[in-house]
Amino acid sequence: MEFKDLTQYQNAFETYWKDVNIESNNPPALFSPISYIMSLGGKRIRPILCLLAYQLFKVDFRRAMPQALAIEVFHNFTLVHDDIMDQAPTRRGAVTVHEQYGTNSAILSGDAMLIMSYQYLLKGLDQNQISLAMDMFSTTALDICRGQQLDMNFEKKEWVAIPEYLEMIQYKTAVLLGLSLAMGGLVAGADRKTVELLNQCGVAAGMAFQIHDDYLDAFGNTQLTGKQRGGDIIQNKKTFLWITAYNLGGQRLQQELINWTKQSVANASDKVRRVLEIYQSLDIEGHCQKKQTDYTNQAIDALNEIDVSDERKQRIFDLMALLLSRSH
Amino acid sequence: MEFKDLTQYQNAFETYWKDVNIESNNPPALFSPISYIMSLGGKRIRPILCLLAYQLFKVDFRRAMPQALAIEVFHNFTLVHDDIMDQAPTRRGAVTVHEQYGTNSAILSGDAMLIMSYQYLLKGLDQNQISLAMDMFSTTALDICRGQQLDMNFEKKEWVAIPEYLEMIQYKTAVLLGLSLAMGGLVAGADRKTVELLNQCGVAAGMAFQIHDDYLDAFGNTQLTGKQRGGDIIQNKKTFLWITAYNLGGQRLQQELINWTKQSVANASDKVRRVLEIYQSLDIEGHCQKKQTDYTNQAIDALNEIDVSDERKQRIFDLMALLLSRSH
Repeated sequence: MEFKDLTQYQNAFETYWKDVNIESNNPPALFSPISYIMSLGGKRIRPILCLLAYQLFKVDFRRAMPQALAIEVFHNFTLVHDDIMDQAPTRRGAVTVHEQYGTNSAILSGDAMLIMSYQYLLKGLDQNQISLAMDMFSTTALDICRGQQLDMNFEKKEWVAIPEYLEMIQYKTAVLLGLSLAMGGLVAGADRKTVELLNQCGVAAGMAFQIHDDYLDAFGNTQLTGKQRGGDIIQNKKTFLWITAYNLGGQRLQQELINWTKQSVANASDKVRRVLEIYQSLDIEGHCQKKQTDYTNQAIDALNEIDVSDERKQRIFDLMALLLSRSH
Repeated sequence: MEFKDLTQYQNAFETYWKDVNIESNNPPALFSPISYIMSLGGKRIRPILCLLAYQLFKVDFRRAMPQALAIEVFHNFTLVHDDIMDQAPTRRGAVTVHEQYGTNSAILSGDAMLIMSYQYLLKGLDQNQISLAMDMFSTTALDICRGQQLDMNFEKKEWVAIPEYLEMIQYKTAVLLGLSLAMGGLVAGADRKTVELLNQCGVAAGMAFQIHDDYLDAFGNTQLTGKQRGGDIIQNKKTFLWITAYNLGGQRLQQELINWTKQSVANASDKVRRVLEIYQSLDIEGHCQKKQTDYTNQAIDALNEIDVSDERKQRIFDLMALLLSRSH
């Protein structure tokens, strides 16, 4: 599978979103920022996971489109508010919502998106599905707030342990991928146990996905990512790589890693070069690979437990492979 | 009725909230601001409306406590985010959440409160009540975002028409009072038409409530409100009073009202004194009273249409009278 094989899902999603006609709502100042952030695109991984999970059980994936949209609108709400908190100037190559429309609009339009995500979540669900859908959605949403808070807490800490890091990325990133698969299954009428397995699969895949993301920042193809190599290193982010290097390094390397976090930005290129050398000397790449494989296997195991033909599961396996081998 | 007659509802509400034990959640940095804003109190008008509406039909008002809490947590979420947008330093005599914990925490904890309000909303509801509850709640929540946006738009406008003003306060204030009554009825098993009448009653009462609020800012007892007289005048707010005065004043008074909005803050006391004189010369107090009475009558009419004994309605009538005659 290549990303272009997902075009039919992406196109169907964009068509559904276009028909929502968000710009027709009043007052425009509230809804234009929503139109803007949603128009910046992205691969629509979460909606696609939702639609593919639906197709494990039923054919017409358009039935799961409201839930796919709910999750994508929710995801974009988190981007809008996180970008305010991180004072991020750009997102997906464009200026962020708060830079374009002001912080107040970004706060308020983000709030409106969170509410809209609840509205779409319930569209087309049977009465007996609503409670579970609501419960899973709110629990996940609150966990994502927890993840963002933990991430902000990390900025003030000199040291973070691996379990703390894993908890943070589970909340901030992985649980929403779990919800995406679970919600697709739920809409298709899967039983509670199957929905839970889909959730487990997505969470584990999300952990692997985030660790791969950390890896790409240090070792990815910068021509393809379009990002500066070592952005996380420059920002002193407590990534899986940095924490693992700190754990494995002797006293001398530990001190050096800490010292680099205190260097002024002027030394950025020296800092990135030297921290990458440390990573290489400790085979951090291998440790990333190992951890990523562990989580990927957990995801595969969960999916294998679901009582559906392997043929139907193939697209999800393919998408996972694609996401976890991507070089950008 | 006096406010002290509501003590049993307030106490029951505070006990229910205390048992939530919000402070026990992790990470503390996410949940402490929620505990803080909720601890600042207020009269808990919205929860009480919800509980009183429940008692139109059933006795044990504690059954409606999750929904009463959902609405109060939602209301406090709007206060937290609005205070950021308004750069308000204080709220209910204490520093605002963003001043106490920082803007990032105020944004994120507000988001968590919005999610929590959905969690409480559905607690204890029957399957066949959930759709309507969700639908009403999300519609109201989105309308409140609209109201805040319109209010922010007004700050940039020299001129606002009465219908625009009424639309703004309907969204920003009144619809949540409507939801409070409607949700109480819904939990008690009232039919859809009755729930809609409760909503209409609450919205109309909310309009009267907000106009009374505008009135108190200019003519209230400052010893009791604890606020500076004419705060809205100093801030150039387009209140019902100001817009009505502008509408009724001749060309000379209109020009004078506009001129005062352009005066520097140094002239605040002259400005308040003179604008109040203009209000008095045009009997703006009488116009407020008239408009407030119109809306109050609408609220009474809606409540009278509900097929329940007058005796059961008395507490809601009493509370409305109390809110709309308050001098602070």
